[in-house]
Amino acid sequence: MKEKSIDIPMDDGEKTIKQLSEFIKDKVSQSRSAGVVIGLSGGIDSATTAYLCARALEKEQILGIIMPTETTSYEDIDDAVTVAEELGIEYEIIAVDDLISPFNELCMHSVSNKLKNTPSRSLANANLKARIRMMILYYHANDLGRMVVGTGNRTELLIGYFTKYGDGGVDILPIGNLYKTEVRSIAQILGVPENIIKKAPTAGLWHGQTDEEELGIKYETLDKLLFLMVDKGLDDQKIAENLDISVEEVLRIKNKVQSSKHKLEPAPTPGPDIGSY
Amino acid sequence: MKEKSIDIPMDDGEKTIKQLSEFIKDKVSQSRSAGVVIGLSGGIDSATTAYLCARALEKEQILGIIMPTETTSYEDIDDAVTVAEELGIEYEIIAVDDLISPFNELCMHSVSNKLKNTPSRSLANANLKARIRMMILYYHANDLGRMVVGTGNRTELLIGYFTKYGDGGVDILPIGNLYKTEVRSIAQILGVPENIIKKAPTAGLWHGQTDEEELGIKYETLDKLLFLMVDKGLDDQKIAENLDISVEEVLRIKNKVQSSKHKLEPAPTPGPDIGSY
Repeated sequence: MKEKSIDIPMDDGEKTIKQLSEFIKDKVSQSRSAGVVIGLSGGIDSATTAYLCARALEKEQILGIIMPTETTSYEDIDDAVTVAEELGIEYEIIAVDDLISPFNELCMHSVSNKLKNTPSRSLANANLKARIRMMILYYHANDLGRMVVGTGNRTELLIGYFTKYGDGGVDILPIGNLYKTEVRSIAQILGVPENIIKKAPTAGLWHGQTDEEELGIKYETLDKLLFLMVDKGLDDQKIAENLDISVEEVLRIKNKVQSSKHKLEPAPTPGPDIGSY
Repeated sequence: MKEKSIDIPMDDGEKTIKQLSEFIKDKVSQSRSAGVVIGLSGGIDSATTAYLCARALEKEQILGIIMPTETTSYEDIDDAVTVAEELGIEYEIIAVDDLISPFNELCMHSVSNKLKNTPSRSLANANLKARIRMMILYYHANDLGRMVVGTGNRTELLIGYFTKYGDGGVDILPIGNLYKTEVRSIAQILGVPENIIKKAPTAGLWHGQTDEEELGIKYETLDKLLFLMVDKGLDDQKIAENLDISVEEVLRIKNKVQSSKHKLEPAPTPGPDIGSY
């Protein structure tokens, strides 16, 4: 019984897929967009989102953009191309590194240069990559009168595993309410290539990086933890017992959830009592 | 009486200034930031925001970044430098154009190239500038462990006169609840240089551009219109009479307000009933 409540019964997968593609269709038509632009990484999230777009829209309305950096594996580029070709959508490859170097050079001469090679510099660089990708997607979207479709899932969004105004900077989030493990089930039904579903998820920040290693937790456990914490409102002790992990581990994730809330919320303004009108 | 309700009694300006600088101080300490990074354009909004930051924080905690493009006037660069020097804060100048050209070149070879020189291309380019500025600000903020302070006012935010994930991509918006005309009163009290307060506001998109010309309405009228529409909930006819303008003009602004709401809201996800957890 306890196990049941954190199970993922995906029998209604087709129904979910229908709802998600309706969502995409509605948003495109409500905003009077000509279509969508989507970043294809070769991973399961962007593949699944692209497959959903293909169910919702005409092929001609979908542009996939593949944006590798020097730390992107050839396998991922291949997989991203496969997704585009399988779906028969237009795609292009734009190397992000060419845009990073002039940027780094310019900023090297800045006053904050004194801080370079601190740990925060690598954070700044990782975020920079994600923001350049956002810019490329919007540059095309603006030009073509389209929307940018985000590929973030509920797990990532809840723990803030994305860059504010980077991969978080999108117009709609079709799989934003699906946990990572749910995305896997959906991907299967949609016919996303098996190797894309099976390979270890990575944010591609360095060679051989995997999400689960960086996060220090398996997605299976993380999703259940988040479900019990956010959706069910269970207390830390109960969650730890339920999943057979330490309370410290629960608190570690809780802290991620709380400290990253600002990343998806509108920037705060002072209260409405401010000002004289 | 009718006039009174849309008047701006700025006698409590000092109180407002106190509240706004408290807001900045609180946000910086809540997020455990080392300070702030702010884009200085030479205009009244960024000057006022910088002056507020200087009331809230130590000088050493504030970094001003001046990011001119080829369409920025020398006067604006001068004024931005003056703000930084008057406040005694660290600042630097980074030319944005150097970052735009490699970007344009790369994207020129893209499939969307067939659309270049359409009107939407100039929108894409204007947005690109704003997003590059956002990236520069965050690159420094991440590196220094600081927040990015936005300079948008309530008027701009309501009508969507900003770039999504560009100048709209910030951590806090200290003057986000002040109409443009209120910012002017606040600026006076703060001691912002007179010529900055007096000069015609411009987004700097082309030489000689002014906001009021582009928007087709004076800020005095626009602010009153928005106050009656958004804060007071008056109907279109009443607003038109009150301000002695046409109903069409009211509707034109109303349309801007409605169609730009998405720019400051989190990207929508499908309803919570989606998924199987």
